[in-house]
Amino acid sequence: MTKHIYIYSPSSAVRNKDALRRGVARLKALGHEVELDPTALASHMRFAGDDETRVAAVHRAAASGADIAMTTRGGYGLTRILPAIRYKAVAKAIGRGTVFVGLSDFTALQMALLAETGAPTWAGPAVGEDFGVEGEPDDVMQACFEDLVSGQGEGTGWRLPAKEARDKALEVSGRLWGGNLAVLSSMVGTRWLPKGKGGILFLEDVSEHPYRIERMLTQLLHAGILAQQKAIVLGQFTNYKPYPHDKGFKLQTVVDWLRQQLQKVPVFTGLPFGHVPTKVCLPVGTKVDLAVEGRDAFLLWGHRH
Amino acid sequence: MTKHIYIYSPSSAVRNKDALRRGVARLKALGHEVELDPTALASHMRFAGDDETRVAAVHRAAASGADIAMTTRGGYGLTRILPAIRYKAVAKAIGRGTVFVGLSDFTALQMALLAETGAPTWAGPAVGEDFGVEGEPDDVMQACFEDLVSGQGEGTGWRLPAKEARDKALEVSGRLWGGNLAVLSSMVGTRWLPKGKGGILFLEDVSEHPYRIERMLTQLLHAGILAQQKAIVLGQFTNYKPYPHDKGFKLQTVVDWLRQQLQKVPVFTGLPFGHVPTKVCLPVGTKVDLAVEGRDAFLLWGHRH
Repeated sequence: MTKHIYIYSPSSAVRNKDALRRGVARLKALGHEVELDPTALASHMRFAGDDETRVAAVHRAAASGADIAMTTRGGYGLTRILPAIRYKAVAKAIGRGTVFVGLSDFTALQMALLAETGAPTWAGPAVGEDFGVEGEPDDVMQACFEDLVSGQGEGTGWRLPAKEARDKALEVSGRLWGGNLAVLSSMVGTRWLPKGKGGILFLEDVSEHPYRIERMLTQLLHAGILAQQKAIVLGQFTNYKPYPHDKGFKLQTVVDWLRQQLQKVPVFTGLPFGHVPTKVCLPVGTKVDLAVEGRDAFLLWGHRH
Repeated sequence: MTKHIYIYSPSSAVRNKDALRRGVARLKALGHEVELDPTALASHMRFAGDDETRVAAVHRAAASGADIAMTTRGGYGLTRILPAIRYKAVAKAIGRGTVFVGLSDFTALQMALLAETGAPTWAGPAVGEDFGVEGEPDDVMQACFEDLVSGQGEGTGWRLPAKEARDKALEVSGRLWGGNLAVLSSMVGTRWLPKGKGGILFLEDVSEHPYRIERMLTQLLHAGILAQQKAIVLGQFTNYKPYPHDKGFKLQTVVDWLRQQLQKVPVFTGLPFGHVPTKVCLPVGTKVDLAVEGRDAFLLWGHRH
């Protein structure tokens, strides 16, 4: 099914242009019509163009009438332009059927859209980083993306660690929200973080030491956000360096500590999402069911069409 | 003037015990009576003892009746124990004359004390990291500490960069608050960050890339904190690695951006405070005057006795 995919750069400048070209070529090979935003390759210091340029790119993606609006990459740059985004215009585009998808720094736009308008978006791949890899892109990522594109996706499942197995089946419902922990925690106390009460919060991060992950989770905890969730689902936390000083303080230590703090809110790990090749697509701002039985976990959102 | 100095560990475990011994020896050589908390050298993973141990250490420091309560070092560990601190007991100790001094992770306790009780503390040296250096500790640090200990300090001054010079003298008054930016920004949206309205906010950090410094400042900005200040004073931001990707994005870029966002709030740099040997002592939670004329800046708090 041919879809119109609009590709733009709201965050960091694209440095690996080959990866972007490969990503575009692969999306075309999948049969899609791909449109590259005029400033997708812009560069202003670390950014894909200055603030005005990136704000305009977001607005062009919204005005494109595309089926899918994808980012070239994450990085950094969205938080500082949040005050200049016309959220209603983006929400209108989403209401007309444009699916906004991305991850990492893109979390900032997803959270702000949700807070300002309630509009749903998708956590999922970026063109350069996921479709532009050398060699074949990840199977699961591609399959989930095709499900998203075709509107066939009904949910996603993964295997929990043995210690998280539930003998008695658990099922909770709530609005799915979250994304990158560093970006999300940097929005606490601002108008652009949704309240998220009664939600299912998913989190991932990259290059953050477990003590920093814990400090960020502590902020969400002390802000009252975590205790209000129906469940917390942790994705992949990768690419950090342990220190000799840690002496047994690990990511698992942080997860155990989190569970102690939140005895009434279940915390699951292993969600295949984050800065890793194997990533599913997740509907941010959409009501989902989280079902756990034994070691099997499912996030279910039913047909979109 | 002999003072009773109580030394405790509320944050990370002391790994460099030689530095701590040297620091204690130097404080004794200055004529002070030094008391080491029983768990000052405790170690539990990254921490100077488990949470209960470190909470008890803070409470013992408050109950010590010492003239000065100093931390062995910073690191990480205070944010997670904030709910367990008995703030009124610590504030009472401060009211009786115990001066709490420290920096870095200690910012969390300073902010929470200020939010909960309004009690003043001091941003200043840690025993191991400042007094325990090999060779002679920094002159300015020692002189400012002696001013603090003797109650003689009336303020501190420093030289501004040429571009921050004011032809017309500027003088503003407000409660001084702040400290480590990463710690402070991780408290936004929680009950332990003071409102800080009408204050003079000082900030420093270590090992944080300018883009992260900007993201943290953006959180303070979007939370409405920065625009409410009478002035913002930036200390030392040190020990980060630039990336090739930066392409001209520097700490100065962040400062320039901050000034653009805050046209009504003056932003000064160069305060001799941070993760550097030359650090002054600053009265957190105390009303101060910030006076700037030409390239000379002063923070003035008058006699304490």
